[in-house]
This record gives sequence, C-alpha cells and structure tokens, in this order.
Amino acid sequence: MLGKLYGIGIGPGDPELITLKGFRLLQNCPVVAYPAPDEGKSLARQIVASYLSGHQEEFAIRMPMVEQRFPAQEIYDWAAEQLGQRLKDGRDVAVLCEGDPFFYGSFMYLFGRMADKFAVEVVPGVSSLMACATSLSAPLAARNDILSVLPGTLDEATLIERITGADAVAIIKVGRHLHKIRKIVDKLGLNPHARYIEHATMSNQVIMPLSDIDKTHRAPYFSMILIHTRGAAWHV
Amino acid sequence: MLGKLYGIGIGPGDPELITLKGFRLLQNCPVVAYPAPDEGKSLARQIVASYLSGHQEEFAIRMPMVEQRFPAQEIYDWAAEQLGQRLKDGRDVAVLCEGDPFFYGSFMYLFGRMADKFAVEVVPGVSSLMACATSLSAPLAARNDILSVLPGTLDEATLIERITGADAVAIIKVGRHLHKIRKIVDKLGLNPHARYIEHATMSNQVIMPLSDIDKTHRAPYFSMILIHTRGAAWHV
Repeated sequence: MLGKLYGIGIGPGDPELITLKGFRLLQNCPVVAYPAPDEGKSLARQIVASYLSGHQEEFAIRMPMVEQRFPAQEIYDWAAEQLGQRLKDGRDVAVLCEGDPFFYGSFMYLFGRMADKFAVEVVPGVSSLMACATSLSAPLAARNDILSVLPGTLDEATLIERITGADAVAIIKVGRHLHKIRKIVDKLGLNPHARYIEHATMSNQVIMPLSDIDKTHRAPYFSMILIHTRGAAWHV
Repeated sequence: MLGKLYGIGIGPGDPELITLKGFRLLQNCPVVAYPAPDEGKSLARQIVASYLSGHQEEFAIRMPMVEQRFPAQEIYDWAAEQLGQRLKDGRDVAVLCEGDPFFYGSFMYLFGRMADKFAVEVVPGVSSLMACATSLSAPLAARNDILSVLPGTLDEATLIERITGADAVAIIKVGRHLHKIRKIVDKLGLNPHARYIEHATMSNQVIMPLSDIDKTHRAPYFSMILIHTRGAAWHV
C-alpha cells in the first residue's frame, strides 16, 4: 500500500501556532521533509524541533536561497523522486511548510509533481499575513475592505497601481526591495499608516514604522509591510 | 489584579484546525465568549464544543445576522462592558473567533473598545482563505502573484476593476451577491478558473465550479469564490 504525502502548514514561527491536526500528523509520519538552505539549519525544522520523536527519517530539501530566482526545477524533480520512493515503500511523508502550504509556499512545487501519482493531503496553517497583523496589534482588514497582497518583487508601476484603491495592503517578500518600497510609500503619502515587520511571532521579531527604518537595514526575504490606507481598521 | 482578554482564532471549522496555543488558552480561561445569532446555536462554540471543560462561564454575544448591516454598536458596547467586568474581577476571558480574529473578524469591535483599558492578546488562526485553497486542492498564490481579497458586497464596477490585473482573487462574503458575481466572472471570461466553496473543512462542505451553480442556490454569507486568472498556480 502506498504512503500518503502531507503538506503541513506549521505556522509563522511560534511553535505553538501549529494546528492540532498538523501536530498530530507530524508526529505520526515516519518521514519528515523540510526546505533548508544550501548549508546550515532549516528554519522549518527548528520551529517544530521539539515535536519530532527522534525516530523519524529526516529529509532536507536543500535549496540555494537566492532571491527572485525561483527554485531550481531539478532539485524539486529530485526531491519528488526521493519522497515518491518512500511513499511507494508504504511510508507516509510529512513536508513541513512555514506559514500555509498554499499561500506563496514552495510546497506547491512538490504538489505539482506528486499529486497525480500519490494521495496528498494539505493541512492549512496560520500564514505570516495573519501573524503580522497580530504582532502589530492591528486588524488586517475589516468590513468591506479591499485587501491587496503584493510581492515586493513587483516593479514600481505595478506596486503603485495596486496599492492605489486598496484599503489594506500587505507587501510580502520585502527583502532587498525594502528601499524601493519605502520610496513608493512615501510618494503615495502613506508613511503614517505603513509598518514594517520581520520574524513575526518569533523571539527575534522586529516591528517598526516603515519610515523609521535605517537606510542601511537589510530586510530578510520574508519580511512584510502592512499598510491600512485609511489608518486603523477598527475605529468604528 | 485584572484578567486578560484573549481573541482566539479557532480556524475555519474543522475543530482540529485550532492552534496548540489557542487550544491551551481556551481551556485555561474561566470565561468563554462567542458570537451567536439572535436565536439558536453559535457556530464558533460548536466548533470547539469538545474542548470546553464544562466548568467555564459561557457568554454569548447575540447579534442579528443581517447581511451588510454592520454589527450594532450598542451590542458591542454592552458586551465590552460585561466582559470588562469579568476582567476587573480578575478572570481571564477567551473570545472565540472563527478563522482569524483580525481577518475581517468581528473581534475587532471588542478590541477597539477594550484594548486601551485591558491587556489583550490575539492568537492568530487559520483563515477561511487558506482553508478554501486547501479544500480546493489548489494553491492560492505563488511566486510573484498579485492576490486580491474582495468582499462580495462591493459594487460591480469596483469588483471588475480589482479583479482585472490580479493573478489570484478571493471573493469573500459571497452570500446574496452570488449572482451578481457570477455575471461579472462570466463577463470577464474567467469562468474556467472560478470555483465556489461553502463550509470549507466542515462535514457539510460544498465545492463546485462557479458556472455549475444552480440559479436558485442560496449561498451562505461566509461562502467564497476563488479565481486564479491564469489557471492553476502550481504549473511551473
């Protein structure tokens, strides 16, 4: 009998923000796979480290962490082949996904390669979007708000077009686009409503008004900027 | 000593999709509050029913469930006053929030009234957005996708404007706007990519292509339509 592939959203970083379902499946799978950098530790694995039994096979999908270069096809071809072998051996495989597997997650590269051959179940997770709003103590969107989620990798004209007319904006994958985005937010007069956040819900979380960020600051790839264009959403 | 107010995201409906943190806090709070209709049962309470100890005070915030009418100020004024009394008595209060508290959630009405007087902690949850993508086995957004979240209550011109140019679109709060939205999706030629979902992750979940919905179908308020304008996001 074939094993089953689980894509498990482990949440934004606080280990307690995994779901009961994700926690249960993670502990029951004999194989646990996770994304990892070329060298060094996997953040996804670190988040759930205390939940691993020590008797599970671990499988690191090592990926060069170069911004804006989408994951090398070959690495996912290889990982799908390797994990598929374990499923054929009848072993269930849990793939750890930071945040939610289907919200800009790299799990979809395995899903696209494996869902037609194997049983796949996705367990949704708390995404960085909701975690950042929580960390900022500011509702993300309310009532009839239009919410735009925009990767910071987009060009300036597209960002301006899509920020304009939205009530709430989440700019994700800020990384090296931080200073381009700052200029845009400034130009649109939205500085009073724009806040920057990195490592939401983790011990090294950083929150500040976007306009306070030092020009030399290096934003991590998974940092985020939240803007509520009319100010606070909850003043009703 | 004052009690603490917790806004707990309990997830989209499957009781196992609450977080470990939400689960722990819910069990530890002597007072549990939840939204409820004028008469009858609270869906939020039903979702977590098996986690309640039976020794907690329960507090239903009963609200006329009329679409497009935003919650009556007076009811939240009263609930904030009542829950504040319990906090002043030194008892912690958990407020149950379907999905995520800060993603179009009614918790923000209590937050706006109480956060300046009491310690408030929000526990993010799995939102309907991620749950619907999971239930559809379709990634919500990938790579450089622009994602627009649009309440179905918006007028036709605004919906058309914001759907156009987005890669992925989630139309929330579909309810009685279903047939208006169908016409728009049809006009934009997006029928092949539009799917309808209600009661995601629950036993009465319904999924179908938007164009298959019967003209007499009555969509619940919290139904959703997901569109990926280029087709599947994960074909890479």
